[in-house]
Amino acid sequence: MTLAELATRLGCQLEGDGTIEVTRVAAVDDAGPGDVTFLTNTKYASRLAGTRASAVILAASSTAPDESMPLAPCAVLRARRPYAAMAEAVAILTPPNRPAPGISSLASIDPSAEIAAGASIGAFVAIGPRVRVGARTVIHPHVVVGAGSVIGDDCTIHAQASIRDGVLIGDHVTIQDAAVIGSDGFGFAEREDGSHLKIPQVGRVVIEDDVEIGAQSAVDRPAVGETRIGRGTKIDNLVQVAHGVKIGRNVLLAAQVGISGSTVLDDGVVMAGQSGAAGHVRLGKRVRVSAKSAVTKDVDDDQHIAGIPAGDVRDWRESTVLVRKLPELRKAVSDLEQRLAALEEKLSNVRGSP
Amino acid sequence: MTLAELATRLGCQLEGDGTIEVTRVAAVDDAGPGDVTFLTNTKYASRLAGTRASAVILAASSTAPDESMPLAPCAVLRARRPYAAMAEAVAILTPPNRPAPGISSLASIDPSAEIAAGASIGAFVAIGPRVRVGARTVIHPHVVVGAGSVIGDDCTIHAQASIRDGVLIGDHVTIQDAAVIGSDGFGFAEREDGSHLKIPQVGRVVIEDDVEIGAQSAVDRPAVGETRIGRGTKIDNLVQVAHGVKIGRNVLLAAQVGISGSTVLDDGVVMAGQSGAAGHVRLGKRVRVSAKSAVTKDVDDDQHIAGIPAGDVRDWRESTVLVRKLPELRKAVSDLEQRLAALEEKLSNVRGSP
Amino acid sequence: MTLAELATRLGCQLEGDGTIEVTRVAAVDDAGPGDVTFLTNTKYASRLAGTRASAVILAASSTAPDESMPLAPCAVLRARRPYAAMAEAVAILTPPNRPAPGISSLASIDPSAEIAAGASIGAFVAIGPRVRVGARTVIHPHVVVGAGSVIGDDCTIHAQASIRDGVLIGDHVTIQDAAVIGSDGFGFAEREDGSHLKIPQVGRVVIEDDVEIGAQSAVDRPAVGETRIGRGTKIDNLVQVAHGVKIGRNVLLAAQVGISGSTVLDDGVVMAGQSGAAGHVRLGKRVRVSAKSAVTKDVDDDQHIAGIPAGDVRDWRESTVLVRKLPELRKAVSDLEQRLAALEEKLSNVRGSP
Repeated sequence: MTLAELATRLGCQLEGDGTIEVTRVAAVDDAGPGDVTFLTNTKYASRLAGTRASAVILAASSTAPDESMPLAPCAVLRARRPYAAMAEAVAILTPPNRPAPGISSLASIDPSAEIAAGASIGAFVAIGPRVRVGARTVIHPHVVVGAGSVIGDDCTIHAQASIRDGVLIGDHVTIQDAAVIGSDGFGFAEREDGSHLKIPQVGRVVIEDDVEIGAQSAVDRPAVGETRIGRGTKIDNLVQVAHGVKIGRNVLLAAQVGISGSTVLDDGVVMAGQSGAAGHVRLGKRVRVSAKSAVTKDVDDDQHIAGIPAGDVRDWRESTVLVRKLPELRKAVSDLEQRLAALEEKLSNVRGSP
Repeated sequence: MTLAELATRLGCQLEGDGTIEVTRVAAVDDAGPGDVTFLTNTKYASRLAGTRASAVILAASSTAPDESMPLAPCAVLRARRPYAAMAEAVAILTPPNRPAPGISSLASIDPSAEIAAGASIGAFVAIGPRVRVGARTVIHPHVVVGAGSVIGDDCTIHAQASIRDGVLIGDHVTIQDAAVIGSDGFGFAEREDGSHLKIPQVGRVVIEDDVEIGAQSAVDRPAVGETRIGRGTKIDNLVQVAHGVKIGRNVLLAAQVGISGSTVLDDGVVMAGQSGAAGHVRLGKRVRVSAKSAVTKDVDDDQHIAGIPAGDVRDWRESTVLVRKLPELRKAVSDLEQRLAALEEKLSNVRGSP
Repeated sequence: MTLAELATRLGCQLEGDGTIEVTRVAAVDDAGPGDVTFLTNTKYASRLAGTRASAVILAASSTAPDESMPLAPCAVLRARRPYAAMAEAVAILTPPNRPAPGISSLASIDPSAEIAAGASIGAFVAIGPRVRVGARTVIHPHVVVGAGSVIGDDCTIHAQASIRDGVLIGDHVTIQDAAVIGSDGFGFAEREDGSHLKIPQVGRVVIEDDVEIGAQSAVDRPAVGETRIGRGTKIDNLVQVAHGVKIGRNVLLAAQVGISGSTVLDDGVVMAGQSGAAGHVRLGKRVRVSAKSAVTKDVDDDQHIAGIPAGDVRDWRESTVLVRKLPELRKAVSDLEQRLAALEEKLSNVRGSP
């Protein structure tokens, strides 16, 4: 593909030779002739001068760090949203492999299941009774889909995923390898002897359109009602979503986050890596939770919180600095004690003097 | 089923019309006609007035919040242990799906394995030499069971679980999807050049009766000896149990907990989400560990601990509050310094005056 | 095998009866006649007197705690590196099971794949187009290997692992059960409406020689470039390695560690359980990170860090102690305030007196 064609498809403004052939997207340091690179983090701007790429995707407003220098040593594609343009360039130049449509002769499909035309079902896939799989959906080898589950159109279910019975999955959903959807919630009633009675977990799980769920993540089903993940939400690897959790739209959960039972995350919440939320709490719209933090109570819209337990991020940062300065503070208190004792001693003399 | 029949089977005292047909258990807000709801958390008591359920399970001692009001707008089932009664009601009204007994023609069973009558073995299950599977045990599709492992009666092993060789599993054990039992412990001996020699992990894993292990959890085998999980212990998703760990009876481990090598958890220990324990420590009976905490040393029976490193939970709570007030404390010390300096200045005059 | 033979193979100095038959390695407390035990942690030295083992592996320099006592109640194998000698003894006496070479008739192998002589491919393994599997490599049941991936010689890939397309794995690599190599990195570009555009993740993953990756761990592929794990690195269970991470040689990552995108870990880094590193940071050679810590910025070689955010471990320990003593410090400040107020009162009198 020529650079001019790529610029047109990306809706970018081209500065430079549009006849160059481009074949892939590469990082600034790795790129060579024929590669398109990108700069979305100004932290790395100085590396651009040394790139061997044939073209670079930059923000529309980019200017050279030094007026005497050219903006880049190669052609430039100016993009209104350079990160999105990079994503589209990757999709155009190196589209992910997609298996051919059809059902593997090594798959086990219950006769009552309905597989739409154009779907692709890999080797050793096990599909249970009354399952429905939508058009153009790809189910990679070794996926298990339990009785009565529904998977929409244009989904990709990667290898080793387990989708238990009665799970509803919308359109354009991606589930990474070995994720589990619909495992039993962790619900037990304590008996008088200290042992625990399992509460049957027979609720359902609903995954709305455009959701992505990462490798090894688990979404539990509840005893009653449902666990729901809202449209456009993206979940990274090794994340725990407990029984009865309700996640809104366009939420981002980074790797190893854990959400306890019945908690609600409103639209646009972002939780950073290894953070967690206790059960039965509500995080308002667009709440941001810093890495490793523990949310223990309801949080209003638009708060940014951090810490264990989590509080306002600015307070947390200030406390964190002060904790490091505790040795100084203790020293200051000791000094005060000595000076005060000296004054008290002196004053005891003063008292007697008049 | 009529409400009267359900009341009898649950051992509950019925107040209201026993002839109503009931079909499922539902949450207070979701329930409609024909549903039984429940109230186990008094936090939600005010919602009961608005429920459309046909009946509600309540604690035996429940009274209306206001004497002029009825206890509930529907029939009432009074239970000595309402949470357990709810669990039983779910089990009675909506029992989980159970596949028919028999061995799938698509399973691979070594000729030397023994599968008891009434067991159910799903598609693509791979069972190795000398494995024994007990009566009425259900092994869902895609489970792998290694050479010489034994699985007891009435167990449920969900899809994609991997049970390595030489694992002993008791009766009434549930293993959720994609859990791994008997993976190699993380044991290496450092060589002089900084590289690491793998210590073969050839010990065994024992899972006693009535244990549940969550989705994506891993229980490692040790180099020598055994890793053991005691009767009635329940483990949530994404939990790490390292080599040589000994877990007692009726222990609860919430999601994403990690237990390092050779650590011992005595009966009744409860560890909340994302907490962890260092290696070679012992947690006494009924020790409770708060979420996100790190246990770094032995803990006596009945302690409740929190923090990193974990200490008494009351001390931790007090410290947490004081950390947040560090800006105030620093301000107080600054004020003292100024006042003291002023006094010192004044006293330097006083000294000279007589 | 006789103890004399074992001593020769381990290169240990034997003290005692070399004609004893030995059959396995066992822990000090579990060992009986015919067992070889070991003592690598001096914390347990007192237990040695009570062992029933036939022989014990000890450090070359070991001496009896009390001169009147023998060093051990059994034969002694003196080793320069006792932990490594124990590892070798386990490997010699109880080698792990190894399936016979050959390809299961139940595996699905693409005709374009090349499986080297002596490799072992288990039941229900699915191997895609152009995959190459090296000599003597064992692929256990239910492993999936995607198009174009290469697995070297003498590797062991345990059950349920998913190796996506285009992954390069060196020689002598061990991958534990249900690990995922090459899942999509968590890369999205935010659109103006708050939704997220998936950036295709089409980079590759390279696993160098002698690496071990634990059960349920995930190694993501990047959008461009590669994710790389260096020679001799050992990764425990449930670890997240995000897109574009570069890990050097002989690194150790304990269970539940998380490494965010594009972060670099230089040779010899050790991260303890449940710790994490933010994206785009660099950890220098031999950096040690304590359990539960969060690395948020670049770290120089040979630092030992701890805390959230992580700083020097000694400072962290001091702060941790002082945080616990905050109630005392606050009390000291209150006392100072009272004493100072008393002095101020007294001085206000003094001032008027002359």
